[in-house]
Amino acid sequence: MCGIVGIVGKSHVNQAIYDALTVLQHRGQDAAGIVTSYGNKLCLRKDNGLVSDVFRTRHMQRLLGNMGIGHVRYPTAGSSSSAEAQPFYVNSPYGITLAHNGNLTNTEELADDIYREDLRHINTTSDSEVLLNIFAHELQEQRQLLPTPDVIFKAVSEVHKRIRGGYAVVAMISGYGIVAFRDPHGIRPAIFGSRETATGMEYMVASESVALDALGYKIERDIAPGEAIVITEDGQLFTQQCAEHTELTPCIFEQVYFARPDSIIDGVAVYKARLRMGEKLAEKILRQYPDHDIDVVIPIPDTSRSSALELANRLGVKYREGFMKNRYIGRTFIMPGQQLRKKSVKQKLNALDLEFRGKNVLLVDDSIVRGTTCEQIIEMARDAGANKVYFASAAPAVRYPNVYGIDMPAKEEFIAHGRTTEEIATAIGADWLVYQDIDDLVSACLEGSKTSAKSFDCSVFNGNYITGDINDEYFERLSQLRNDATKEGKRVVENVAIDLHNDETES
Amino acid sequence: MCGIVGIVGKSHVNQAIYDALTVLQHRGQDAAGIVTSYGNKLCLRKDNGLVSDVFRTRHMQRLLGNMGIGHVRYPTAGSSSSAEAQPFYVNSPYGITLAHNGNLTNTEELADDIYREDLRHINTTSDSEVLLNIFAHELQEQRQLLPTPDVIFKAVSEVHKRIRGGYAVVAMISGYGIVAFRDPHGIRPAIFGSRETATGMEYMVASESVALDALGYKIERDIAPGEAIVITEDGQLFTQQCAEHTELTPCIFEQVYFARPDSIIDGVAVYKARLRMGEKLAEKILRQYPDHDIDVVIPIPDTSRSSALELANRLGVKYREGFMKNRYIGRTFIMPGQQLRKKSVKQKLNALDLEFRGKNVLLVDDSIVRGTTCEQIIEMARDAGANKVYFASAAPAVRYPNVYGIDMPAKEEFIAHGRTTEEIATAIGADWLVYQDIDDLVSACLEGSKTSAKSFDCSVFNGNYITGDINDEYFERLSQLRNDATKEGKRVVENVAIDLHNDETES
Amino acid sequence: MCGIVGIVGKSHVNQAIYDALTVLQHRGQDAAGIVTSYGNKLCLRKDNGLVSDVFRTRHMQRLLGNMGIGHVRYPTAGSSSSAEAQPFYVNSPYGITLAHNGNLTNTEELADDIYREDLRHINTTSDSEVLLNIFAHELQEQRQLLPTPDVIFKAVSEVHKRIRGGYAVVAMISGYGIVAFRDPHGIRPAIFGSRETATGMEYMVASESVALDALGYKIERDIAPGEAIVITEDGQLFTQQCAEHTELTPCIFEQVYFARPDSIIDGVAVYKARLRMGEKLAEKILRQYPDHDIDVVIPIPDTSRSSALELANRLGVKYREGFMKNRYIGRTFIMPGQQLRKKSVKQKLNALDLEFRGKNVLLVDDSIVRGTTCEQIIEMARDAGANKVYFASAAPAVRYPNVYGIDMPAKEEFIAHGRTTEEIATAIGADWLVYQDIDDLVSACLEGSKTSAKSFDCSVFNGNYITGDINDEYFERLSQLRNDATKEGKRVVENVAIDLHNDETES
Amino acid sequence: MCGIVGIVGKSHVNQAIYDALTVLQHRGQDAAGIVTSYGNKLCLRKDNGLVSDVFRTRHMQRLLGNMGIGHVRYPTAGSSSSAEAQPFYVNSPYGITLAHNGNLTNTEELADDIYREDLRHINTTSDSEVLLNIFAHELQEQRQLLPTPDVIFKAVSEVHKRIRGGYAVVAMISGYGIVAFRDPHGIRPAIFGSRETATGMEYMVASESVALDALGYKIERDIAPGEAIVITEDGQLFTQQCAEHTELTPCIFEQVYFARPDSIIDGVAVYKARLRMGEKLAEKILRQYPDHDIDVVIPIPDTSRSSALELANRLGVKYREGFMKNRYIGRTFIMPGQQLRKKSVKQKLNALDLEFRGKNVLLVDDSIVRGTTCEQIIEMARDAGANKVYFASAAPAVRYPNVYGIDMPAKEEFIAHGRTTEEIATAIGADWLVYQDIDDLVSACLEGSKTSAKSFDCSVFNGNYITGDINDEYFERLSQLRNDATKEGKRVVENVAIDLHNDETES
Repeated sequence: MCGIVGIVGKSHVNQAIYDALTVLQHRGQDAAGIVTSYGNKLCLRKDNGLVSDVFRTRHMQRLLGNMGIGHVRYPTAGSSSSAEAQPFYVNSPYGITLAHNGNLTNTEELADDIYREDLRHINTTSDSEVLLNIFAHELQEQRQLLPTPDVIFKAVSEVHKRIRGGYAVVAMISGYGIVAFRDPHGIRPAIFGSRETATGMEYMVASESVALDALGYKIERDIAPGEAIVITEDGQLFTQQCAEHTELTPCIFEQVYFARPDSIIDGVAVYKARLRMGEKLAEKILRQYPDHDIDVVIPIPDTSRSSALELANRLGVKYREGFMKNRYIGRTFIMPGQQLRKKSVKQKLNALDLEFRGKNVLLVDDSIVRGTTCEQIIEMARDAGANKVYFASAAPAVRYPNVYGIDMPAKEEFIAHGRTTEEIATAIGADWLVYQDIDDLVSACLEGSKTSAKSFDCSVFNGNYITGDINDEYFERLSQLRNDATKEGKRVVENVAIDLHNDETES
Repeated sequence: MCGIVGIVGKSHVNQAIYDALTVLQHRGQDAAGIVTSYGNKLCLRKDNGLVSDVFRTRHMQRLLGNMGIGHVRYPTAGSSSSAEAQPFYVNSPYGITLAHNGNLTNTEELADDIYREDLRHINTTSDSEVLLNIFAHELQEQRQLLPTPDVIFKAVSEVHKRIRGGYAVVAMISGYGIVAFRDPHGIRPAIFGSRETATGMEYMVASESVALDALGYKIERDIAPGEAIVITEDGQLFTQQCAEHTELTPCIFEQVYFARPDSIIDGVAVYKARLRMGEKLAEKILRQYPDHDIDVVIPIPDTSRSSALELANRLGVKYREGFMKNRYIGRTFIMPGQQLRKKSVKQKLNALDLEFRGKNVLLVDDSIVRGTTCEQIIEMARDAGANKVYFASAAPAVRYPNVYGIDMPAKEEFIAHGRTTEEIATAIGADWLVYQDIDDLVSACLEGSKTSAKSFDCSVFNGNYITGDINDEYFERLSQLRNDATKEGKRVVENVAIDLHNDETES
Repeated sequence: MCGIVGIVGKSHVNQAIYDALTVLQHRGQDAAGIVTSYGNKLCLRKDNGLVSDVFRTRHMQRLLGNMGIGHVRYPTAGSSSSAEAQPFYVNSPYGITLAHNGNLTNTEELADDIYREDLRHINTTSDSEVLLNIFAHELQEQRQLLPTPDVIFKAVSEVHKRIRGGYAVVAMISGYGIVAFRDPHGIRPAIFGSRETATGMEYMVASESVALDALGYKIERDIAPGEAIVITEDGQLFTQQCAEHTELTPCIFEQVYFARPDSIIDGVAVYKARLRMGEKLAEKILRQYPDHDIDVVIPIPDTSRSSALELANRLGVKYREGFMKNRYIGRTFIMPGQQLRKKSVKQKLNALDLEFRGKNVLLVDDSIVRGTTCEQIIEMARDAGANKVYFASAAPAVRYPNVYGIDMPAKEEFIAHGRTTEEIATAIGADWLVYQDIDDLVSACLEGSKTSAKSFDCSVFNGNYITGDINDEYFERLSQLRNDATKEGKRVVENVAIDLHNDETES
Repeated sequence: MCGIVGIVGKSHVNQAIYDALTVLQHRGQDAAGIVTSYGNKLCLRKDNGLVSDVFRTRHMQRLLGNMGIGHVRYPTAGSSSSAEAQPFYVNSPYGITLAHNGNLTNTEELADDIYREDLRHINTTSDSEVLLNIFAHELQEQRQLLPTPDVIFKAVSEVHKRIRGGYAVVAMISGYGIVAFRDPHGIRPAIFGSRETATGMEYMVASESVALDALGYKIERDIAPGEAIVITEDGQLFTQQCAEHTELTPCIFEQVYFARPDSIIDGVAVYKARLRMGEKLAEKILRQYPDHDIDVVIPIPDTSRSSALELANRLGVKYREGFMKNRYIGRTFIMPGQQLRKKSVKQKLNALDLEFRGKNVLLVDDSIVRGTTCEQIIEMARDAGANKVYFASAAPAVRYPNVYGIDMPAKEEFIAHGRTTEEIATAIGADWLVYQDIDDLVSACLEGSKTSAKSFDCSVFNGNYITGDINDEYFERLSQLRNDATKEGKRVVENVAIDLHNDETES
């Protein structure tokens, strides 16, 4: 997953983009980047690390200009080990930089095409570099000395025709303005807002509404599926639908886990949706275990807290924060002659014995992926003296890989792969386990929301990939790429490429 | 506030001390240090920054040895702007390193004495450097070629006679072992535990029990007020009472705010105490506002969450997490020609409108010091649409400075200074404000706890300084020191001293 | 001035390019860069600083591949404050990187053209980025899926037609090979050589022969003016003349000052030429001052040592090294409240009193530019007790700016500007001053050399710019650019741009 | 070898000490340190690396105060692998810092004594830490609240009685002043000077006169053997002879190789001494080879240049600089799977073929130690086409280890060990070899010098150790220590200790 932001302001935007990236940091902690446009120069800083580590005073002082884009990165599924920070840059046409959240599912053929058509060299395995070059090519094809909204909208239309997958994109054209667009299913989120200043209107686009809130921007609306918006450097806004067949089916995992609870995505208030997930889950538990003997409901911090609280309310059972999260996480150093210690959830969580001792506890998490963490947490609960340990997941069983930009393992690694709910309960050591029903999850997101979405991409739960082009062959190719990537040498090549556009980490 | 740890193990202790410091990081984020003893060499690394920043692989590889001590630092009240990281080192006698949590109230005269007695130069304004030299002097006076437990206990007894204030100390004598002791009132916490290994017993001492838990040590007991413990490098434990008049009156602010909820300090389970603070506070609210119209109870994250939850339960009102905490905090950069933006609580918290809109909310915090944060948070609540905003503090009004190691401003800066509760409510913008009663706070800590404490140091609430030696003159001198320190040049001198024992930060 | 190198080898070339850049470090100490090609990826590292500072182990480990190019930079005259390190990169066509020694005199119109023709954005003020884009454009125009020697030679031919100035270029085409070419007058040097290995022939191109010597390459020959050479990744060499009218008139300043004495440039052994400069100068002195009373000849280290030694031999006067060069140069720090100390030659040189005391000394330098250093050195000689101080310059008076890549000030700043030799002697404080005659300088370079050059570019001495296109208008525009650049903000913009392709310095 | 400096000035001395260390950098490139005294605080910065690398603006800004001392370090023979940078610090009595050039030959017993007497812990293997503690102990024994010149002189007298070896020491007593002293044989150099300013007299002490020259200090005189000087912070100078039996027998290797030619050491102008070494050597050659066929004399740069020039003059043979020194030296990186390349003199020197081709050359070096460099250089000369290669050493054969602070290998590693001159010539590949006679070397240093020295320590040439206490047992113990140090673990311990007083390098 990644977070994107773009601002066209009336004064230097470096601090504003930095602040926005900080607010979006939960979407990616691996790398961060900002590019601004100042006169006819682009100013870039990107590196691996947290926003607060990547940008020092000396960098900020150079990131001049009234418009710019930013990115926080999380390695995505499609590009097995993408080592590149964003934004990316090409100098023709115009000087374009681009940042992207999502994943393309036809990256390889696009890379081949773009070399053949335009002799464009792709130096990384990142789908974002490919996407940028496709977009650049479509702009160049129109051979205009200066871009116009029409030229850009036409280019986006062509891009939509060629690329497949889920994507929310923000790009900046040197000396002209900012472009943002979203895939025809609106899988990945993007929202924009405005702010009036004494010297005119400022515009901002971001992955989540919370970034606009934090910076004092008034939310205009989500970008529609397939739509593009253009904000010129002088502050004019243009919007246009650039895709032929569109349908809003956003990724439901944003609601379950990814987005901040204080965001509203495509009209769905994430916090409210999570409360309702708790309600629905309580009802299912009451149906399945009408005579349950739960003494206390305990969330696995932090994401599941809202669901668990409402679940407890609905069950009429005490809610208690029985796990303390270690906010400061250290490393495990390997001394000469020592072996690596197994990473343990104990470094992250500590159980408060007195909330467990002799009680029947219901642990609540947002979802279960590999199940290893669950298993350790349940063990911790028992060690803390719990009598019985029940487990509830606010989302259904994760059984299928995500191909639209959420990093997930191969399906064989899911605990739910080839197991019934009872078998999973046994595997993780729970006395019983309840998963949310998929319909309940969707209802929790839709009910009471002012959203134009009729449904969601729930592919990780039901294997129904909304773009309709994902088949076994795709996964086989992906699996093959992953295997190649782990072979000796490959990893080096990709790391090697970091330096081409990139700043160097110091360590 | 600071955190201390000491371990005598059967293998290299660097990782264990590092892990313990991470668990104690909440006690101080300013600086960190570890010293180990390997053969007859001491190996030290300390610097400003978080534990995870200060210790890199290259440092850990050099921190060899089976015993060591560690420290995390928070600037303390007594030393106006102490720039020094701990542990400190003196080479005579024996080679001693020392780390300390607390504050001495007679630092200046001690520094003068130690120079006159022993010509010992003190190069910083840190009371810890003074304490180390006093301890070193008392050891040296006994002129033993090798220390023994008796020699050390005698030295600690002399130290107790000379120094005043609150202190929990861990020191290491090169090639001999570790010493830990606690002031005669047990103001600052210290606890020790043991772990059996195949090659013998390992011992650990730390500020809080949670550090022992996390490393798998069995808790032996808190160090008694005035007591010292000696653990020799070969794993023998010796303990002795070294003060004449002792009484356990620990700092109640550990319970209110400082300690981790999953710690047990002097027999008081912090989490439980906080739950009871919520109960007591609820009862007071019910007494004062029997017809209250509170719709929802909302904690100010993170510390007040336990109190607020139980308070809500007792009031029979919904508990909701209406503020989202930004976990990733960035900086504000000053660009040439720009002015510093006011630091805002908005960078740290975000209000979830839907929990506030049209409701009467009761905000709960652990305590109120300057009141500026409260004021901003109440404003945020109103901006988010709250109808009425009530405020409850789990602790009484803070009206007196802390002199035992908790960094607090001068008393003129307290919002409660010279104001009634009603006036404070007005000042922070609350519709009404309720403070915990001091007796209720003490009861919340004592009731149901297996503690030998009969009372607490509650000086910040009642001005009753348990050591009996704090008077107006003391505060005047302190105030004078602070003024001097802010004058030009002074700050430089103290920063200057950083390099003498210390590693350099990179920026 | 800059240094370039390119190698196509049979194993990883990173260390070899690094070593070659170290040998060429005298040509530029400001910045360094290496790019290698590994599979279809380019691996780049460049930054400000010396070669030994820019490349650390972590960078070298990523610079994989059997071919690559490198660069050391010195800011050049044409681009007033070029902040960019080289090589530069464009991704279309093919992925091309380029490094360049020299200066283009029509950079601005080229930048405009290339934007209009191809919408190529130029993000810096570096003529090298423009040159790269011109070359890339000419390659792209031929629309070949894979380049061939013919395609490349055609592109170089077109480049020669469009760009003006002095240039020696090395470029690498991803996955194909290395190209090197030289301007039609051969102003800037470039030489290539080969080395047989068990697995085939390796080729290397570099600015100076000493780099080939140091790496054990056999010198093939200098690249001819206007010629291009192509070395494919699999080790085939192709050469072709790509310019219509060519004439070898290399820059004579390489002989005077710039090149290492152990290099042979276009058939002229630099060391020998310098010895002959000393002879010629001695003869002129004997003609002008047949009754001279010189006691000792003392060189200004390091460049003039060869000339001075032979000059002394010819005069029959003792040669003595009366100035000691400080090999370790520190910085002058500005403390708060202090003013910058004037930079002094005393930090670099120390006079040995006993070689000066009571003697008539003849100081010898390679050339005189601003004259400020001369003046200080003469003052040092007098302070050391010299009776009379004469001065001899192995080159004629520098009166005209260099436009072919040697950084020189505007002509108003030359000490010789508007002054006779006698007036210059007075200005620098010499008892008398002798300049080499220009014909003698040329003879010193040509006599006894196996060179095909009939003459040299001597423009800094005679104002005769060999490319025939340098007029007053050019210098006026240059002067205007410099003025603009020093205005506030401009400098920032250019520094700003560093990050776009570049690694970050750590300080 | 090491360089020391101390300044008591009338304004901040940080820049002056920095500049002085830069001038003394040739005496040690391994580490550098400065400590200043500001009010009652000491401000220290020290680290491994060159002066220009160790001190950045942020360090200099903290090194406040009008007095301070500095050090550049070269690892010395006695302490097998001393990893510590200087100055060192102890806090009792007074707060003392110390820096030292030389080597103590009874370090181990002193370390034992000082622990037994005073319980002083020594944390490194550096003899300087021991020396500091001995000095501190002797000061402390006098139990004065404030030191006086008499107290200090008495302490130095006691130090002289206890320590053995060669040493030049500068120490600073916090808030009091600077002390400098020199061993009773004056083996290691130390000189002091003064500078008048508007606000009073400033004093400086340094290893070599060139440092005083460079900073504009007037040379007062060398510190006499056994003498101590005290400069109080307010600018008073006190001097006193503190040793009973003294005799000036300085280390002759300073004249041969170590000192800068522009220094005057104990009245001997190094440059002049080296010229005379050339003369004497010429005479010996003429005696031994009256019919020599030498065509050209070529120095091995840089040290032997003066001797070689005068040697050539006396022989009546051409002097030519046939080797070019590479001023920029890079590293050899080890790539995964590669082996370390043999370090070659080719990275440092390049032969100018035309000075060698067909000629009989006489190569001149200052001395021959291991002989490996000689051998490679002679091979280079032959590869460059030399007909015959003769070799002359300006010093006699090095046959005995240095124990007074010059880092030399064990005697078995000397090329001259167990070999006649003819055998050495064969071993290094010379057609013939001439060594300077020891009497000629001494005469070259004494003749025409205004020195009070009657003789020199020539122990590396004749095995006659001037301190009279060096025997086989000493070397056996040294050899044992070296062996121990190379065993696994030991090296780690010593590195480990770096951090105790020291700053951290960044890489």
